[in-house]
Amino acid sequence: MEQLLQHLKENLTEDQVTTNKTVRELHGRDETYLAESLPDVVVYPKSTADVAHIIKVAQKFNTPVTPFGVGSSLEGHIIPYKNGITIDFSLMNKILEIKAEDLLVKVQPGVTREQLNKELKKHGLFFTVDPGANATLGGMAATNASGTTSVKYGVMRDQVRDMEVVLADGSIIHTGSLATKSSSGYHLNGLFVGSEGTLGCFTELTLQVYGIPEHIVAARAVFPDLSDAFQAVTSILQAGIPIARVEFVDEASIVQLNKFSDTDYPAVPTLFLEFHGNAEGLKADLAFAKEIMEDQGCQEFISESDTAARNHLWEARHNLAYAFAHDYPGKKMMLTDVAVPISELANAAIYARQEVDKLGIPGGIVGHVGDGNFHSILMIDLDNEEEIRKAKEFNKNIVLYALERGGTCTGEHGVGIGKKPYQEQEHGASLEIMKQIKKTLDPNNILNPMKIVDID
Amino acid sequence: MEQLLQHLKENLTEDQVTTNKTVRELHGRDETYLAESLPDVVVYPKSTADVAHIIKVAQKFNTPVTPFGVGSSLEGHIIPYKNGITIDFSLMNKILEIKAEDLLVKVQPGVTREQLNKELKKHGLFFTVDPGANATLGGMAATNASGTTSVKYGVMRDQVRDMEVVLADGSIIHTGSLATKSSSGYHLNGLFVGSEGTLGCFTELTLQVYGIPEHIVAARAVFPDLSDAFQAVTSILQAGIPIARVEFVDEASIVQLNKFSDTDYPAVPTLFLEFHGNAEGLKADLAFAKEIMEDQGCQEFISESDTAARNHLWEARHNLAYAFAHDYPGKKMMLTDVAVPISELANAAIYARQEVDKLGIPGGIVGHVGDGNFHSILMIDLDNEEEIRKAKEFNKNIVLYALERGGTCTGEHGVGIGKKPYQEQEHGASLEIMKQIKKTLDPNNILNPMKIVDID
Repeated sequence: MEQLLQHLKENLTEDQVTTNKTVRELHGRDETYLAESLPDVVVYPKSTADVAHIIKVAQKFNTPVTPFGVGSSLEGHIIPYKNGITIDFSLMNKILEIKAEDLLVKVQPGVTREQLNKELKKHGLFFTVDPGANATLGGMAATNASGTTSVKYGVMRDQVRDMEVVLADGSIIHTGSLATKSSSGYHLNGLFVGSEGTLGCFTELTLQVYGIPEHIVAARAVFPDLSDAFQAVTSILQAGIPIARVEFVDEASIVQLNKFSDTDYPAVPTLFLEFHGNAEGLKADLAFAKEIMEDQGCQEFISESDTAARNHLWEARHNLAYAFAHDYPGKKMMLTDVAVPISELANAAIYARQEVDKLGIPGGIVGHVGDGNFHSILMIDLDNEEEIRKAKEFNKNIVLYALERGGTCTGEHGVGIGKKPYQEQEHGASLEIMKQIKKTLDPNNILNPMKIVDID
Repeated sequence: MEQLLQHLKENLTEDQVTTNKTVRELHGRDETYLAESLPDVVVYPKSTADVAHIIKVAQKFNTPVTPFGVGSSLEGHIIPYKNGITIDFSLMNKILEIKAEDLLVKVQPGVTREQLNKELKKHGLFFTVDPGANATLGGMAATNASGTTSVKYGVMRDQVRDMEVVLADGSIIHTGSLATKSSSGYHLNGLFVGSEGTLGCFTELTLQVYGIPEHIVAARAVFPDLSDAFQAVTSILQAGIPIARVEFVDEASIVQLNKFSDTDYPAVPTLFLEFHGNAEGLKADLAFAKEIMEDQGCQEFISESDTAARNHLWEARHNLAYAFAHDYPGKKMMLTDVAVPISELANAAIYARQEVDKLGIPGGIVGHVGDGNFHSILMIDLDNEEEIRKAKEFNKNIVLYALERGGTCTGEHGVGIGKKPYQEQEHGASLEIMKQIKKTLDPNNILNPMKIVDID
């Protein structure tokens, strides 16, 4: 350990390397039910060269390396179960370049989503991926994050044009180019995005951005029951209405949201929606969407074009996880994150709601309905072993339900440690290919070991 | 050779295996300047099991395997430079399932784009990727094809939800799921799409489709010079107008197009455009686009909402390569395919046009401007060695120009043999990672050897 620290400090200053227990504790747990585990040392690189140095030292000492953004991951990605070095990217938080004409931006991995959007706004631009949390862009690339706007603009992987990555041997590569599209070579952008720190550490990202839409209208639609709400979304998608967000929130979650967010929405199954476009097109889209929804039993459809009202609505939606956490102090979250083909979504969500009710554990169902992705949020008492066992069983049942229908165990949160038990069932023989790729790129398994795949 | 044939015929019928010279010749060349090379044998699998059998036999005899769709590739992907077995997928041409509610379709790799769209139309759906040629979907996935509509709907890789792939050892994997998005495991969909038959043979594809847009308007905009046309497109993209196609055609190409297609378009730099949406939104988009174009010097802007007129316009554009070929019988095509950041596009196209003029070889410049991707089409006399040398030098200069500006050597045609010389310059240290992946998945280098990367 002393030797490791000495080697780290050869190229890093004293304040870039710490073994302080409080700091280590902050890097050893997250908001979820997952068990904590502390790194031996936390380092704060300021440059790509620093990261390369750290990884070379880690390789020399055969020590695990775990990258850390702001710790908003929900599947234990950032918890170093084999201890070792945690690389905290908070000092690599510069927006390096905004190329407005090319709709491109180059950032360091520690830049957060809100930090980027604040700067882009000055250029009339925005970064589309919105997972709610103010995550770092490095972390979002690592988990292939998505969120409320992905139904229109795509997921994190769709925004990454190029990344600079430090590999397991400390060498540095670029995964793409600045071209909008390319058929050159194997798709390393796609491979590294979503690799959760297991194939390399990202040190720079070039991302695609968009012009802020001319007009934005948000809406809230309330339904007598869940399946009507979901059927309405299917009809909207099939009609080809270019919806920008469409979020489902169940009764239990509306109750929680009203408590936390100074709203008094009726506690019934609700869709939160948003439309982007020109004034005339939006008006037509909204009218058509309203008609489809009313055909599907929608009881009330309230649209908001005023910016403050729109922001209020989305803030309430995005604060939902905090609303649950706030109302159950001392408890920890467990989330399911399956995605299924759209035609299976209504039944999957009904099944999940019924299973939550059986559990007797407080929880809600919310969904990025346009992507067939929904979350069950459970608030768990970590001192109650029976409750943990039941919640894990529930998580498993939801995953198996989705896999049996051609879905995925994780639509956007990533595998980490929480969804690793389901990788074999989901990927079958291709899991072996994933293991071979991991072995090829990280033969000593020092990069975020125990996440996604085991190769030991 | 006799032994190889015997082994192939163990699980295949007589008519599925041929060494007929005419058939082999049809599988040993393409429309381009690239040298021909014949397979020893051509096989016609009817099922995934047939493909697995063929690849196992190939592995046993250490014989190269080259997949073949309809032969419309433009970089020699389908030419078996190490001979061996060509797998012709023309008998695996079934549309297996249309899941209209999920906007998904499952096809065999030999299904062509037009065959699929004809069937989808009955359901009010369409497959978006349109490279012009009536290529097979397996081939389009192999090269990550794109084309005129990618500016709105994305490239081939964006449409692939799952593939069944036979690997080098004859084992069978799936690369994805039916979920719209996933953060589960490494992104094998992305890795195999664009792998040009070098990592495995695709035997089934599940693809995303879209509802046919409510309204479609095409337009033609003529400009006094090339750079005005390109600047107009940049302005349209920055304004966030959701354009569905935007194609540049230069003077020389318009002349060729008029000769072939019964049109009398003015021989000046021209944009062909298309807009998709609802009636009101389209009208506003069109008016805004027209205003931007006129600010940029557009001299005439003619829109066509009538289906026949729209089809006529796009047919003329798509037949451009044939128009050149038809006018220069006996000559063969060479195409450049670079993509650059949008801000570099006008200068890149001007540079290419100037270089073509210097060559004294007939040729034109066309571009998928919204993606920063353009082609120079040269018609080469293969009996003229000096002409071949000059054309190759030109190709190289265009690629180097693009790479120096952060672009790619191929926006949509793929690497094959033609763009392989530029892989090291484009990918730098990451080419080594690509080679390691190839070695891991195809250690004996039997899968389409000499394409993309060399590992010998």
